[in-house]
Amino acid sequence: MAVAGAPRRAADSWATMARRNPAVGVVDTLLRGVGQVMFQNNPLTGLLFLVGIFVNSLKFGGTALLGVAASTLAAYLLGADRTLIRNGLFGFNGVLVGIGLAFFLEFDVLLAVYIVLGAAVSTIVMMALINLLSPWDMPALTAPFVLTAWLLLFAVYQFAFIRPSELIAPLAPDPEAAVQTELRELATETGGLTLANLAHGLFRGVGEVMFQDNLLTGVIFLVAILVNSRISAAFAVLGSAVALLAALAIGADGVAIYHGLYGFNAVLCAIAIGGLFFVLTWKSALYALLAAVFSVPAFAAIAVLLSPIGMPALTAPFVLTTWLFLWPKASFGALQPVALADVTTAEKIRAAYTAGRPGPASTPPPGTAG
Amino acid sequence: MAVAGAPRRAADSWATMARRNPAVGVVDTLLRGVGQVMFQNNPLTGLLFLVGIFVNSLKFGGTALLGVAASTLAAYLLGADRTLIRNGLFGFNGVLVGIGLAFFLEFDVLLAVYIVLGAAVSTIVMMALINLLSPWDMPALTAPFVLTAWLLLFAVYQFAFIRPSELIAPLAPDPEAAVQTELRELATETGGLTLANLAHGLFRGVGEVMFQDNLLTGVIFLVAILVNSRISAAFAVLGSAVALLAALAIGADGVAIYHGLYGFNAVLCAIAIGGLFFVLTWKSALYALLAAVFSVPAFAAIAVLLSPIGMPALTAPFVLTTWLFLWPKASFGALQPVALADVTTAEKIRAAYTAGRPGPASTPPPGTAG
Amino acid sequence: MAVAGAPRRAADSWATMARRNPAVGVVDTLLRGVGQVMFQNNPLTGLLFLVGIFVNSLKFGGTALLGVAASTLAAYLLGADRTLIRNGLFGFNGVLVGIGLAFFLEFDVLLAVYIVLGAAVSTIVMMALINLLSPWDMPALTAPFVLTAWLLLFAVYQFAFIRPSELIAPLAPDPEAAVQTELRELATETGGLTLANLAHGLFRGVGEVMFQDNLLTGVIFLVAILVNSRISAAFAVLGSAVALLAALAIGADGVAIYHGLYGFNAVLCAIAIGGLFFVLTWKSALYALLAAVFSVPAFAAIAVLLSPIGMPALTAPFVLTTWLFLWPKASFGALQPVALADVTTAEKIRAAYTAGRPGPASTPPPGTAG
Repeated sequence: MAVAGAPRRAADSWATMARRNPAVGVVDTLLRGVGQVMFQNNPLTGLLFLVGIFVNSLKFGGTALLGVAASTLAAYLLGADRTLIRNGLFGFNGVLVGIGLAFFLEFDVLLAVYIVLGAAVSTIVMMALINLLSPWDMPALTAPFVLTAWLLLFAVYQFAFIRPSELIAPLAPDPEAAVQTELRELATETGGLTLANLAHGLFRGVGEVMFQDNLLTGVIFLVAILVNSRISAAFAVLGSAVALLAALAIGADGVAIYHGLYGFNAVLCAIAIGGLFFVLTWKSALYALLAAVFSVPAFAAIAVLLSPIGMPALTAPFVLTTWLFLWPKASFGALQPVALADVTTAEKIRAAYTAGRPGPASTPPPGTAG
Repeated sequence: MAVAGAPRRAADSWATMARRNPAVGVVDTLLRGVGQVMFQNNPLTGLLFLVGIFVNSLKFGGTALLGVAASTLAAYLLGADRTLIRNGLFGFNGVLVGIGLAFFLEFDVLLAVYIVLGAAVSTIVMMALINLLSPWDMPALTAPFVLTAWLLLFAVYQFAFIRPSELIAPLAPDPEAAVQTELRELATETGGLTLANLAHGLFRGVGEVMFQDNLLTGVIFLVAILVNSRISAAFAVLGSAVALLAALAIGADGVAIYHGLYGFNAVLCAIAIGGLFFVLTWKSALYALLAAVFSVPAFAAIAVLLSPIGMPALTAPFVLTTWLFLWPKASFGALQPVALADVTTAEKIRAAYTAGRPGPASTPPPGTAG
Repeated sequence: MAVAGAPRRAADSWATMARRNPAVGVVDTLLRGVGQVMFQNNPLTGLLFLVGIFVNSLKFGGTALLGVAASTLAAYLLGADRTLIRNGLFGFNGVLVGIGLAFFLEFDVLLAVYIVLGAAVSTIVMMALINLLSPWDMPALTAPFVLTAWLLLFAVYQFAFIRPSELIAPLAPDPEAAVQTELRELATETGGLTLANLAHGLFRGVGEVMFQDNLLTGVIFLVAILVNSRISAAFAVLGSAVALLAALAIGADGVAIYHGLYGFNAVLCAIAIGGLFFVLTWKSALYALLAAVFSVPAFAAIAVLLSPIGMPALTAPFVLTTWLFLWPKASFGALQPVALADVTTAEKIRAAYTAGRPGPASTPPPGTAG
């Protein structure tokens, strides 16, 4: 694409500036941190993600910036590896902590302190998980965000000066309760399987990866991914679509589907498995979509598990599903895992692995029993 | 035993047929998958397990077959190691997913799709856990079933088209609530410590390993194990008996004891530790029975933890207890662990380890602190 | 200090006696087990801990002794490494199981059996965790106590013959509920930020490490630590103080703060990270205090998570926070981790690492992604 050429040249100039000018380097690092929320190590993607967030909400844009700055600064102060920092790996959990805490807690001056604490701790948890997972060469994904934000969110019932927003609503599960399945917006009384409603579910599913319940933001996020990788953008859409259909087929709450709540974990599962942590083939594509489908009950399950305390699943369904689908690694002959050090873009991975390597590794798994 | 000779010769002929005839090979694989639910890599054991299930319920027999077929087929399609598949290691979790989902969910056409999804995912989780646990040479046990089935069960509160059966009943724990301790059947008003009631608790405990609340099924299961290993059959009975006595002694609910709910985890703990993952000695036998005793509070604890959402413990108490008791491995000089690759039958393990090896390994554990 | 010389000479004589006289050796082992609750491998510290407990409660003193004896005996019978046993590493979880079960359950003859079972199983879980964590050279901390005691506590709702004490009170979380922030004793109606109330929070926080809600016991515990390590004593006080201030600042329940409930996890975090598992420097000191601060929301979070079943957090916030802060190990250049085999006292570690080693290790972390 000719259009793709211009960003690429601009990207090269930017990369040179980022190396030479420390201030540009910091901006570059923070933008990559934002981009890494969806595995895109690209400052332009990060910038467009920010645009998408600010289009929906100044508040979330601001707390996203606070989070990414705090978590990245913590990594510098603690002496983490500079290359990892530069690639934004200590930024994306901070972004999500920043938005996530602002989303589920009431706005307050203490909230800023809480976000800074959470973002800094997310960097510590990230490094802990990098070490914990290194024997298997497994990625931490957004687990540092989930773990840190869960602890900070669960706690607020006990704190007078930081209060839950109205989104936090405990509910005792009731097997007799009927589920309303009509696909519709929360604010309206009626809906249906219209193209518009399906489009809302599809694109809000992408936006909800960063808690942005907004169709336009979802579209901007997709453009942002597209700038870096067509394969990842395709799997973001496919993941959201497959999850939407699965949720409709099984009779999930239509309001939740409309607002993209069944989509965001599937988007991340599909991007991760579809070309990044497994080399893209027809088989791995189907495997990625199976993971997207499984993220639907996984999301519902974690939501139910946390319903007595009224807390959100965050991206735990994505983390759990992707870990389960990724841990088999080379033990499934049909799939070819990508070493973490080789994870760049789905396109480059596919080129490198199909060129240099003779095919799927078929190392037999260790002997085992029941 | 002369009687044992006939099955053995038949087994040899069957094994030859299974190698030569692909159709027989498939049947052999599926039957071993059923047998592996209780660690018995033996097609006849698997066949008798199926007989025991069908005697109690056509529905559960059918969903067991659907589950074992789907999980084994998924392993083939994904390219898992053929020897592992042949030994039924990708079948037993599918069996349990099939019966377990049918047990706790209402019968429906979508349920079949749900079981196939769950069984296939249980194969992925099995391979994930094999890799995750391989640094310690630890077995996955039925954790893939527990994890997969929990996610699929928890989720159904949110789905209109798959509904929980009446067994799913959330309950807020109440420290003041009295526990009824009389040993009796659910349907009757009175009971007592009669031989008949104790026998029901004992044998239903074996049947409940596969959700079969039926004395006769429990007896058939024991015969099925006996066909492959007298030691395992003995520990199945001992585990159930010890747990029954412990549950009576501590004042557990008498209806739950009668229906074998305190027994099935203990049965699995006792079989696993009593001769399979530790070489059978007097010390390891006592250790296995201690695990069976501990599975009683472990079962009650997990049931309480899940009571606010009304969800079942499944075999999580067995998995947790056995992992805790097995992970010490050779660090306890009194016990001799068995390498996973050597796990066959308790009899063969005992013969191999007492013949070839000079005694319990006494490798000192790594230095450690608080 | 001249005063410190006398205990040191007495300690040398005692050590000689403990080696020569088996009875003294057993007493020495049990006392070290008590001392290890706060990482102090010193029989005098253990003795003073016991004095502190008995000053507050004969019952808890007795069950502490029962627990440490049962868990240590189990380690002997199972053939655990003698050096580990001698250092009290199979004692401290037993101490906590003994006090913890007596604290949350009603006193009864069966309780003694339950404590012996729990203490013995805590030894098995300790060995399991030592092996599980050995690839990362990470300590088990009090996780064996937490896991074992949780299972045994959760279970009692289901048992007629072991009953929860009135401290077990399930509560559905309510986002609307106001939190009372006045710093005061449970029994009184009014309070405030008085020096006396702050002192209660500070010292009870130390006492609550072993469930002793008593200012004097807290002071005795501090003296006990001081006998072995001035650095650890300082961090015990600092951890409690920092957590108290953080809890006040965020508006935690003032009664909980007064009774030290926000302090005990912070005390353990600060001791562990402040000089024991990281070499003491200004950076690691600040890091330890950050962990102490984070233990405040971590405690509140786990309390909320368990509130529907009314169960206590125990020292899980300490275990979780310390694991998260410790797992980064040498990957943070600002911190220098201590090998588990080198963990003695903070003073000796500092002397050894600053003398013999050239500075913080700066091994780059493994390459990773998202």
